[in-house]
Amino acid sequence: MTDLLAEARSLDARDPLATHLDAFVEAPGVSAYLDGNSLGRPLRSLPERLAAFVREDWGTRLIRSWDEQWMDLPTELGDRIGRITIGAAPGQTVVADSTTVLLYKLMRAAVAALPHRSEILIEEGNFPTDRFVAEGIAAERGMTVRWLTADPVHGVHAEDVAAAVSEQTALVVLSHVDYRSGALADMRAITDAAHEAGALMLWDLCHSAGVIPIELDACDVDLAVGCTYKYLNGGPGSPAFAYVNTRHHGTVRQPIQGWMGAGDVFAMASAYAPSHGIRQFISGTPPVLGMLAMQGMLDLIESATIDAVREKSKTLTDFAVRAFDELLVPVGVRLLSPRVADGRGGHVTIGHPDFARVTATLWADGVIPDFRFPDGIRLGLSPLSTSHAEVLSGVRAVRDALVP
Amino acid sequence: MTDLLAEARSLDARDPLATHLDAFVEAPGVSAYLDGNSLGRPLRSLPERLAAFVREDWGTRLIRSWDEQWMDLPTELGDRIGRITIGAAPGQTVVADSTTVLLYKLMRAAVAALPHRSEILIEEGNFPTDRFVAEGIAAERGMTVRWLTADPVHGVHAEDVAAAVSEQTALVVLSHVDYRSGALADMRAITDAAHEAGALMLWDLCHSAGVIPIELDACDVDLAVGCTYKYLNGGPGSPAFAYVNTRHHGTVRQPIQGWMGAGDVFAMASAYAPSHGIRQFISGTPPVLGMLAMQGMLDLIESATIDAVREKSKTLTDFAVRAFDELLVPVGVRLLSPRVADGRGGHVTIGHPDFARVTATLWADGVIPDFRFPDGIRLGLSPLSTSHAEVLSGVRAVRDALVP
Repeated sequence: MTDLLAEARSLDARDPLATHLDAFVEAPGVSAYLDGNSLGRPLRSLPERLAAFVREDWGTRLIRSWDEQWMDLPTELGDRIGRITIGAAPGQTVVADSTTVLLYKLMRAAVAALPHRSEILIEEGNFPTDRFVAEGIAAERGMTVRWLTADPVHGVHAEDVAAAVSEQTALVVLSHVDYRSGALADMRAITDAAHEAGALMLWDLCHSAGVIPIELDACDVDLAVGCTYKYLNGGPGSPAFAYVNTRHHGTVRQPIQGWMGAGDVFAMASAYAPSHGIRQFISGTPPVLGMLAMQGMLDLIESATIDAVREKSKTLTDFAVRAFDELLVPVGVRLLSPRVADGRGGHVTIGHPDFARVTATLWADGVIPDFRFPDGIRLGLSPLSTSHAEVLSGVRAVRDALVP
Repeated sequence: MTDLLAEARSLDARDPLATHLDAFVEAPGVSAYLDGNSLGRPLRSLPERLAAFVREDWGTRLIRSWDEQWMDLPTELGDRIGRITIGAAPGQTVVADSTTVLLYKLMRAAVAALPHRSEILIEEGNFPTDRFVAEGIAAERGMTVRWLTADPVHGVHAEDVAAAVSEQTALVVLSHVDYRSGALADMRAITDAAHEAGALMLWDLCHSAGVIPIELDACDVDLAVGCTYKYLNGGPGSPAFAYVNTRHHGTVRQPIQGWMGAGDVFAMASAYAPSHGIRQFISGTPPVLGMLAMQGMLDLIESATIDAVREKSKTLTDFAVRAFDELLVPVGVRLLSPRVADGRGGHVTIGHPDFARVTATLWADGVIPDFRFPDGIRLGLSPLSTSHAEVLSGVRAVRDALVP
């Protein structure tokens, strides 16, 4: 324990991103926040940004702000996300809706583009909303969902995908980082395997956007969606983003035809004529207020660089595994994540039958990990807002709650 | 002119809601804001509400706030909207997504509930997004959109609907207040006409919610959607609301199956089992930040009462018509709204070939109406934030810009 504390302090002292810890709002009574992969913390600068927005952009410029800045915000912000965290050239990424609604739009667009193929391939342990959307679309289109079985700790491998795709597969839907285990998939190899069979590839980036450098363009990905309230700190329910590779523009078409996705929004035309670009994937009025918080976090990630964020993410999760080995293995806790940093994203999952009770106790005491039914605790370590000492404090609290 | 000014002052002096004018953020340089039906103004109390939210609910309670308050926010807020402005008993209204996405969900749910009927009936001048969504759904379901022609100034009448509905009509989609003319439809008679033919009725309340007392339950409406950034002052792109009459719960089903609409959200079940209630109409994570601003406006409307808001709306639009008669008729401007207050909602539309140029001039000068292609200006008079003097100032500025 003494060694661990010294180690945590040493890692924090050498952490080149440590200065950013002060950029976040203080949380009185919270000694360890280990759920940055469910809800990132707000920036200290946010209240003033919101106040200025209310006074100026909304309150004084009023409706004029739509012309002056808001109409282009979904694509401008999309381009920033593309450049800073997901490796997408401009014009392919847009901020809109929720992850679920965007998954629906992109999956529908994809299967309509390959109408003679009858299957959607998806991992059986993928996040529920991904599976539910796929099931719904398959049912309405007379298609089949083909379930891929993956190792619960190490996730999906390219060989699994290669063995399951066929000329019947229209679309492969997978998570880049598994929401349970944190397993990191090989985006390039798996995308290649899908393409080999002529299928389109849709990646869910919810648990990797903002914490791992992603190369959508370089991996030749077709479609992607991601969340902005985890590692992009956009706030509860902030809008999601969608990526559609330029080669599909004008050929794939999403089903929720709204005025904001029309080629000429204010023509009030008699029939829908979609925008030729990524804007077509917008349906209704963009959620401007929900797009403010993430902007500060994108600034921060850009200044820190996503590569440095990833490096710190690795030292944080490595240290969590080290503390687990020393403090939690002896009390019967299992590791449910890959042991090697290169094989996982920003969170580490551990298991014990008592974790439902333990989580309730910890939450009341200001130590906040994430509980996942039936017996998992996820330690979600957002690199810019989490110190190694905080990780140790959290792991120690888990042990104390298990063995009072 | 002198008479008009005296009249405006007198109306303002007698206005029982005048005290609320101070509740809104000041807009330096704006002498008349006449676009409350495109974007309502923010409340003065909002920056502090947002700051407290960032510090406490998000920043300190962190992920715990989902359990403590956010999970139920979409339905609690829906119930408040139901009670305060749209006449809906609890359990039928939910805040989510954008108007467009909710239109898609409800239209899809409706036509699936009547699979042997082949038509969607919609007014040909309805707001573009309503028409675009209907067109898209008709195309994907092999249905036909039947276009209803309505009087451009006085809108749709029950007889028009009665003449157009048939045993082929699955769904009738109309706006309660026309976005162009402001014509107010007879909800009860039209809903009856739709039901007479066995069709379902979906009302778009975007231009009436928050400014007119609506009686969805009493009119036996099936489905409705509405906007919260106009007269509910929710901020640019704030989420919309959907109403689904209790009698349809469990039988109509929306197509975007997401984790937040499941019966047990955190069971992470292997297959989608929808909530039996209005919650099923949620798909993704609720946009919490976007739901904050409207709460203050709902408080205000509740304290003022929606009936008093409607009364002031009538005196404002009556006064706008009176100022139009005196100042704008002589310079060739046409009235494009019903002349009688009972026949219209909260805005008055006027027309002149020069209005594109006029609007640009006015906006630069801090007089802000709404331009609608090709030659309309809408004077959108949000009752709680607009004075009669402001209306006069705006109408006078229109005249001055036309006849410099």
